[in-house]
Amino acid sequence: MKRTTEFVLTERTKLKRLPKRAFYRRKIIYDILDEGFICHVGFVDRDHPVVIPTAYGRVADMLYIHGSAASRMLRSLATAIPVCVAVTLVDGLVLARSIFHHSMNYRSVVIFGTAIAVKDKKEKLRALRSFSEHVLPGRWADVREPNKGELKQTLVLRIPLREASAKSRSGGPMDEKSDYRLRVWAGEVPLRIIPGTPIRDPRSEHEVPIPSYLSNIMARFRA
Amino acid sequence: MKRTTEFVLTERTKLKRLPKRAFYRRKIIYDILDEGFICHVGFVDRDHPVVIPTAYGRVADMLYIHGSAASRMLRSLATAIPVCVAVTLVDGLVLARSIFHHSMNYRSVVIFGTAIAVKDKKEKLRALRSFSEHVLPGRWADVREPNKGELKQTLVLRIPLREASAKSRSGGPMDEKSDYRLRVWAGEVPLRIIPGTPIRDPRSEHEVPIPSYLSNIMARFRA
Repeated sequence: MKRTTEFVLTERTKLKRLPKRAFYRRKIIYDILDEGFICHVGFVDRDHPVVIPTAYGRVADMLYIHGSAASRMLRSLATAIPVCVAVTLVDGLVLARSIFHHSMNYRSVVIFGTAIAVKDKKEKLRALRSFSEHVLPGRWADVREPNKGELKQTLVLRIPLREASAKSRSGGPMDEKSDYRLRVWAGEVPLRIIPGTPIRDPRSEHEVPIPSYLSNIMARFRA
Repeated sequence: MKRTTEFVLTERTKLKRLPKRAFYRRKIIYDILDEGFICHVGFVDRDHPVVIPTAYGRVADMLYIHGSAASRMLRSLATAIPVCVAVTLVDGLVLARSIFHHSMNYRSVVIFGTAIAVKDKKEKLRALRSFSEHVLPGRWADVREPNKGELKQTLVLRIPLREASAKSRSGGPMDEKSDYRLRVWAGEVPLRIIPGTPIRDPRSEHEVPIPSYLSNIMARFRA
């Protein structure tokens, strides 16, 4: 399939409601994927929906998800199974003058595709590296890489990124004209995730200072 | 169905992997549900899984979800459809000495059930109140309630809480014995969501101070 800058709209990714909030550009979608920590993977198990939170990473136009949490998906490792993956970043609360116009600011991505278990060792290692570097760049080079046995125990699923869309909302409330006269505080409360002070493992045998890749990212988050 | 303090384990909620991380007590599950802001709802649309993030609220043993985001679910409003709802709170990063033992601290709930559209006006209002009070207690009483037209436009789905489980991980890393000798920083980086300074809607006609229910919750979050 030819790679395009924008994902092609499909029946499933086309937004029926508030289409102005929808985006199909790879750059926008990938930025959201790269900022999130966990995804929610949906699949069908004997006609029933199952949703499971799990770690993920992206390598170019490929999404990798950690398979351990989704072991039920893996009954049949040989065949690709349809999945839907959602990543949602909550950016704030939108407080309007009426309940009806209350909302949230967010950026979210929904991906439709098929997941298949990665067997190739090199690809598996690349996927695991993407899980790690995506959450904490620099960590991979600092710690012990997975050995053969660990690699074998770890299930990784590959989902080619072919059908995806993003949705986002930002800014303050949009109230009914007649409600602006109401004496109520209205606006936006930004929300963000910040790291607290790192807690050193009490079982540590050495006094190792907090690595710069961690203190840097913490400074950036807390700024 | 008799109400029990614990959810009864089912084939779907029984944890095969790391069963020590699983909980079935209503209190634990409800505390997680009450702390989260958004849920991910999974359903099956023509044999394919769909996952959508949306707002929710809980009233006793009933979960309510906002239906607008899931309008595709509502093709047949008359019948209940199977859903899976996941709520995940990310509490921190777990940095081990080996990639393999890296993890996340989290609390998550997965609910299996059937969703049906709420038609009764009083129940709908109660559900909308739960969406609002759950995110920002005190807000409901301060703003204009939904009128008849708004109530009609808002889709709310009811999911009785009958089959659910929680999973959680906390604390530092658990490394392989031989890895403790490695000179690498290991431990836990707590993560939390904090509110930023509220941004007043520039369209406001009145100078209204930030209400105490908002400043109180902000102080608590930032403490």
